[in-house]
Amino acid sequence: MDVYFAYETDGRFCRLDAEESGHCCRVLRHRSGDEINVIDGLGTMYRCRLTDDNPKGAEAEVLETFPGWGGHPYRLTVACCPTKNNDRFEWFVEKATEIGVDRIVPTIGERSERKVYKTDRAVRIALSATKQSLKARIPEIADPISVKDFIQISPLASLGRNDMKESLKLIAYCFEGDTKRISIQEALNDYEGDDITVLIGPEGDFSPEEARLALEHGYIPVHLGTSRLRTETAAVLAATAVYLTF
Amino acid sequence: MDVYFAYETDGRFCRLDAEESGHCCRVLRHRSGDEINVIDGLGTMYRCRLTDDNPKGAEAEVLETFPGWGGHPYRLTVACCPTKNNDRFEWFVEKATEIGVDRIVPTIGERSERKVYKTDRAVRIALSATKQSLKARIPEIADPISVKDFIQISPLASLGRNDMKESLKLIAYCFEGDTKRISIQEALNDYEGDDITVLIGPEGDFSPEEARLALEHGYIPVHLGTSRLRTETAAVLAATAVYLTF
Repeated sequence: MDVYFAYETDGRFCRLDAEESGHCCRVLRHRSGDEINVIDGLGTMYRCRLTDDNPKGAEAEVLETFPGWGGHPYRLTVACCPTKNNDRFEWFVEKATEIGVDRIVPTIGERSERKVYKTDRAVRIALSATKQSLKARIPEIADPISVKDFIQISPLASLGRNDMKESLKLIAYCFEGDTKRISIQEALNDYEGDDITVLIGPEGDFSPEEARLALEHGYIPVHLGTSRLRTETAAVLAATAVYLTF
Repeated sequence: MDVYFAYETDGRFCRLDAEESGHCCRVLRHRSGDEINVIDGLGTMYRCRLTDDNPKGAEAEVLETFPGWGGHPYRLTVACCPTKNNDRFEWFVEKATEIGVDRIVPTIGERSERKVYKTDRAVRIALSATKQSLKARIPEIADPISVKDFIQISPLASLGRNDMKESLKLIAYCFEGDTKRISIQEALNDYEGDDITVLIGPEGDFSPEEARLALEHGYIPVHLGTSRLRTETAAVLAATAVYLTF
């Protein structure tokens, strides 16, 4: 089953950009009259009939609408410090998208080796993984932000939520010493809402100031079990724990 | 913390092969008298003092012994059909090792696109991920075997278990139609033992004959939630579900 992304749709017609049109009409040789599946990237899939097979700008008429196609019953933000090796972070983006994530925020920690992150490749990977895993909603790849700013500004404001109590905020941090941590499953099992933010640190962990700030802002310190995981593995494992809980 | 693998140890001395010795004595410039950490690949870590810093064959004296170092409280075999793209299967080997797996079996299904699989790279990746994630036991990478042979011969015989009831065998298969499946967490939560085998199919899924054979041999059909996952993602997710349950 192949799926195309429409950059524009009014619910009656879907328009594909040059890349998607080329894939649909040149590579896979679809012709006007063929049925194709189109997603709007916001959560809806349209079963369509191709009305213009122009490989630089195809158009298709909507036959049937599937809102919430391939969706999941939670809202998950994973804020994760990009790894030194870009491939590893991109792998996380792909896997989290397949499993089910709503927003990925590349956060730059005080101990991050990578201080600059360009999102363009991650955006393409998220689109590709969304189509491949038969989902209609492409996770948002946010602009990079410092860990401290993320803790202070996000996530509630940008999610448009007003009720602070509805959101569960978790920070996976070693907290060597006396901070008491629960497992991520315990935290998820104790929570009755559906809006979760998980903050995953860089290879060198969060700084004590970042960790302190997170606790002040209502983040619950969690551990991800006894294994020592790489940053990207921790991020995928956190997304998996949420996915398996709902 | 750097960790070396000893190809030979008698509990008093550890011997490193040329590759590990070169890494220890040439790359990281350890000299006789330095303390190093050595694993035997079978579950024990030794804190050692380097007694011979020969970069082609180093030797170290055991100071302290840590049995079960970095271990996990379950025994997990993941049998998974190698993906068309080798990188994806190798990524699964790395991630499953980090999370905690005991045996990885490359299985060849009737619908597998890849009918031949060489294990040498996977063996190296498993060693590297074991050291990186601070574990002392390197997961076994079994020789490739057909799905049908694996179902019929394995896993009990090769694990040396006699009591059939002790082992939980799961197959993740679509089973379009009337086969009733439970989620992998339900299956794990209902199980009181600690010996689990999960069988993950190829990109084209198991053949109906393979699935039937698995059910005849006591495999429980499970689903991995509603997302459509790639083979390697399904395999890592299954390992994660086991890890999070124990």
